[in-house]
Amino acid sequence: MPLVRIDIRRNPDPSHVRKLGAVVYEALKATIGVPDRDNFQILNEHDEQHFVYDPAYLGIERTDGMVFIQITISEGRTVEQKKLLYQRIAEGLHAEAGVRREDVFINLLEVRKENWSFGNGQAQYVT
Amino acid sequence: MPLVRIDIRRNPDPSHVRKLGAVVYEALKATIGVPDRDNFQILNEHDEQHFVYDPAYLGIERTDGMVFIQITISEGRTVEQKKLLYQRIAEGLHAEAGVRREDVFINLLEVRKENWSFGNGQAQYVT
Amino acid sequence: MPLVRIDIRRNPDPSHVRKLGAVVYEALKATIGVPDRDNFQILNEHDEQHFVYDPAYLGIERTDGMVFIQITISEGRTVEQKKLLYQRIAEGLHAEAGVRREDVFINLLEVRKENWSFGNGQAQYVT
Repeated sequence: MPLVRIDIRRNPDPSHVRKLGAVVYEALKATIGVPDRDNFQILNEHDEQHFVYDPAYLGIERTDGMVFIQITISEGRTVEQKKLLYQRIAEGLHAEAGVRREDVFINLLEVRKENWSFGNGQAQYVT
Repeated sequence: MPLVRIDIRRNPDPSHVRKLGAVVYEALKATIGVPDRDNFQILNEHDEQHFVYDPAYLGIERTDGMVFIQITISEGRTVEQKKLLYQRIAEGLHAEAGVRREDVFINLLEVRKENWSFGNGQAQYVT
Repeated sequence: MPLVRIDIRRNPDPSHVRKLGAVVYEALKATIGVPDRDNFQILNEHDEQHFVYDPAYLGIERTDGMVFIQITISEGRTVEQKKLLYQRIAEGLHAEAGVRREDVFINLLEVRKENWSFGNGQAQYVT
């Protein structure tokens, strides 16, 4: 169910952004009950002119290593679950991909269960 | 009103993704009451490293021909209308553009009518 | 807090889209209470095949100079604030970047305050 969009500055390693995506997927499974195999992501890389961030908003120091993660999920998660998700993503990206924790930006979009079709023109989450 | 984002793997035919968009537009008009000419789309193509999907989630076999469609619409549509929309998009993409029905992924984002401006800095849907 | 996505047709001036983003940021601060430094944007440019708009929907004449602006914000703004935001963006883009007012398309996505993490894996807006 989650549809994950990740945007970063262009990285010399073409597999880098995909590694970031794998960490996000594992975090979704570990913290908010996303089922195994439910993995759908669109990844983009940008040059300096197309990637804007403030290097100090809220007193957090950000660098060009910044990672924008916007995730569309079904509604129903608690605040506690969302906090766990953020922690897990930031820790995972740091440990497994060398991303600074300060550089992890996450936003969640929430939709109804009926707002998904995973193929064959059906609304698989509607019973 | 709908803002349609379509993401696919890079296709050798540069007009392919635009054809997909035309099918989605027709489906929106046919099923959920989108008015004529209300057609706004951002289309993107990706290489393998930037396009992630599970080839079997929910028992549906997906291929590189996969089409991600994320549509922002005004709230108010019924579950039945959404189901018709999914069916129509999947059937249309199959019949008119040779897309496998299993490869059609759709997600809807819903917003209030006041959340749109179609030009001139006005909120045209607010009376 | 706002996450701004701007999409335009490719412009010969590589700094053009960034200038558009700066105007949007100033409008967000001036009209809906976005704090200073809260500036996060992903900017994209497209060729003709990947950029679809109707040149006359709602009687508004649009050109290839069209600017798609999709902004994710926290919920809670009034209709009046949103209208001011649209006006300010359209006027600002016209005055400062030569964009036709008719070519300014804006959509707002609204989320809960808990749906943001600005770094360090924390939900900074949750008290």
